[in-house]
Amino acid sequence: MNEVNFVQASNLKEKPDVSKIGFGTHFTDHMFEMTYTEDKGWHNPQIIPFSDITISPANATIHYGQAIFEGMKAFRQGDKVVIFRPLDHLNRLNNSARILDIPQVDVELVHTALKKLIEIEKAWVPAQRGQSLYIRPFIYADDGFLGVSVGKSYKLYIILSPVAAYYSHGFSPVKIMVEDTYVRATQGGLGEAKTPANYAASLHAGLVAHKKGYDQTLWLDGVERKYIEEVGSMNILFKINGEIVTPELDGSILSGITRRTVLQVAKEWGYPVSERRISIDEVKDAYKNGTLEEVFGSGTAAVISPVGVLGYKGEDMVINDGKIGPFAQKMFDYVTGVQCGAEKDIHNFTEVVAEV
Amino acid sequence: MNEVNFVQASNLKEKPDVSKIGFGTHFTDHMFEMTYTEDKGWHNPQIIPFSDITISPANATIHYGQAIFEGMKAFRQGDKVVIFRPLDHLNRLNNSARILDIPQVDVELVHTALKKLIEIEKAWVPAQRGQSLYIRPFIYADDGFLGVSVGKSYKLYIILSPVAAYYSHGFSPVKIMVEDTYVRATQGGLGEAKTPANYAASLHAGLVAHKKGYDQTLWLDGVERKYIEEVGSMNILFKINGEIVTPELDGSILSGITRRTVLQVAKEWGYPVSERRISIDEVKDAYKNGTLEEVFGSGTAAVISPVGVLGYKGEDMVINDGKIGPFAQKMFDYVTGVQCGAEKDIHNFTEVVAEV
Ligand SMILES: Cc1ncc(COP(=O)(O)O)c(C=O)c1O
Ligand SMILES: Cc1ncc(COP(=O)(O)O)c(C=O)c1O
Repeated sequence: MNEVNFVQASNLKEKPDVSKIGFGTHFTDHMFEMTYTEDKGWHNPQIIPFSDITISPANATIHYGQAIFEGMKAFRQGDKVVIFRPLDHLNRLNNSARILDIPQVDVELVHTALKKLIEIEKAWVPAQRGQSLYIRPFIYADDGFLGVSVGKSYKLYIILSPVAAYYSHGFSPVKIMVEDTYVRATQGGLGEAKTPANYAASLHAGLVAHKKGYDQTLWLDGVERKYIEEVGSMNILFKINGEIVTPELDGSILSGITRRTVLQVAKEWGYPVSERRISIDEVKDAYKNGTLEEVFGSGTAAVISPVGVLGYKGEDMVINDGKIGPFAQKMFDYVTGVQCGAEKDIHNFTEVVAEV
Repeated sequence: MNEVNFVQASNLKEKPDVSKIGFGTHFTDHMFEMTYTEDKGWHNPQIIPFSDITISPANATIHYGQAIFEGMKAFRQGDKVVIFRPLDHLNRLNNSARILDIPQVDVELVHTALKKLIEIEKAWVPAQRGQSLYIRPFIYADDGFLGVSVGKSYKLYIILSPVAAYYSHGFSPVKIMVEDTYVRATQGGLGEAKTPANYAASLHAGLVAHKKGYDQTLWLDGVERKYIEEVGSMNILFKINGEIVTPELDGSILSGITRRTVLQVAKEWGYPVSERRISIDEVKDAYKNGTLEEVFGSGTAAVISPVGVLGYKGEDMVINDGKIGPFAQKMFDYVTGVQCGAEKDIHNFTEVVAEV
């Protein structure tokens, strides 16, 4: 019954020059689809040609935002295709589902379907180091009536998009603005879920940051506007006096898979690691007294994103002379090395899903 | 150029028995559509047959929630069809658009289109008192790529749904639970906008309240969890010692059109009216010392919703013996009277849009 059906596309697209395309603009020939209804539960798992989808104008997600998603990557390792920590991502999808009252998916089934989808689309996984096939599973409430309530029907899709190296001009630091006006998510809200609401709440602050010459926003907590949360699509880590410090998982930030990876590896490398509340004032103090050695983001898109400038209330802190710190560089090299097969994967972070 | 085009449906649906249908389950034969692109701005306003819509699986709204909506009502008054405060609703749509960085619409054009749509669909406006034609304008980002950024293309639709009387078993009080765990919106967030994020954030608390036997959730502020905000889809008002008190518009609650109506009329009736911060403790104190005379919600769906029970931290406050208060009754009679034409509309709240 839970066999994954396959309907092949009659025409295959021409593959783009991945070095020339932006993030998430091109999609492969097929996608995975699964349907939930009250009577049947999750059913009809199938791989079908990539195409537009049809919704009611009263679709519950367009009006009330009951949706979740994930983001992970597949890489080429010689003649193999691997995915980085797929089960962690699928389990996080179910955690988001719990928060949004979306029915849990069978992780094993979706995992199987994902592997089958990648096997079918393996020619789309770019071979150059840094490039990858971005994997976007998502679920949305599909009900077509206007009452504000938990949906009775859902769709799950997995779509795939070849993406260029994040650092196409070389690994380099970003400028981040600490946001003190807008709030992304707060205690008791949806911050821990990968759900549209959190990204909608970040759009305007993103524009403001861009206008001021910053690349991204660093969020503070919604209650005291003082404790550091995360960046738009990355967790944030600090190296202060030799220690790796990052905000604890308090329910209002995403539990990043890259964050987990970095913390685990840093510990193994012998660095002291601390997950705790950290205030922007503490960061400022460390900056002033010279113990703020490095600041960097962690996320699937960039893996590691060194922060060269941290702007707060109109003043810029220039971190490590605006240059990539040695820890960030070493971690970036290590994790991307594991992803492309240059480093031995002693943790089994990657799973081989196809042979080319 | 901004002529509203009309494409007639080839088959008209049978009209349902409105007394037997839920809220927002049936839609009329046509809908209004308008498209925004960077090069053309808002263009191609047209009334077309009601049908499903097509989006990319990478649609920006499904993934990142950049969308807004409105909700207003058309009523039959004898052989006329009126809309209650249409321009206030369309202006609020533009306020939501500003908060979500969606391009402003030409209110005059949308107003014209709405009137034309109602003229076409006037036979769908139910004639019985309490019944109405619910009008749902909405806008969503229509971009089909996966970057988190403000959209470059949008769709606006107006769909229409005949709705039964809210109080099909007679005007009666509801049980409301004061929510002290979950937060709907906070200062610096999107609370003032009618946008999916706020409703997504309310889903789980709604389930919890229902399980505990309450009809809806009353939100407290996200910072101190102490000041009263609003109900899931209503503003909240208190009558304390003769005065009508309601939370001020602080950016984290919706500026309800019904709230505005009630405050204006209450003032004209000679009641003292106060828009200010009001804490749940103040409400509890008023309850204890016998000055909490009435509690009621205001919103387009129910107009006035008397609160019979207010539960907070496991204790129920029974308001006015669980019965409808005289002020709520009088206001309900007055506003619904204006809507159905039984009361003279001295404020021009209603606009005649069609003759049947
Ligand atoms: C809000 C947010 N925080 C953090 C992250 C980093 O998480 P991960 O390392 O799992 O990609 C992401 C991106 O996925 C994100 O969207
Ligand atoms: C969150 C919220 N608050 C308040 C209201 C009441 O607003 P209005 O009186 O304009 O319908 C609504 C419903 O429209 C709502 O969704």
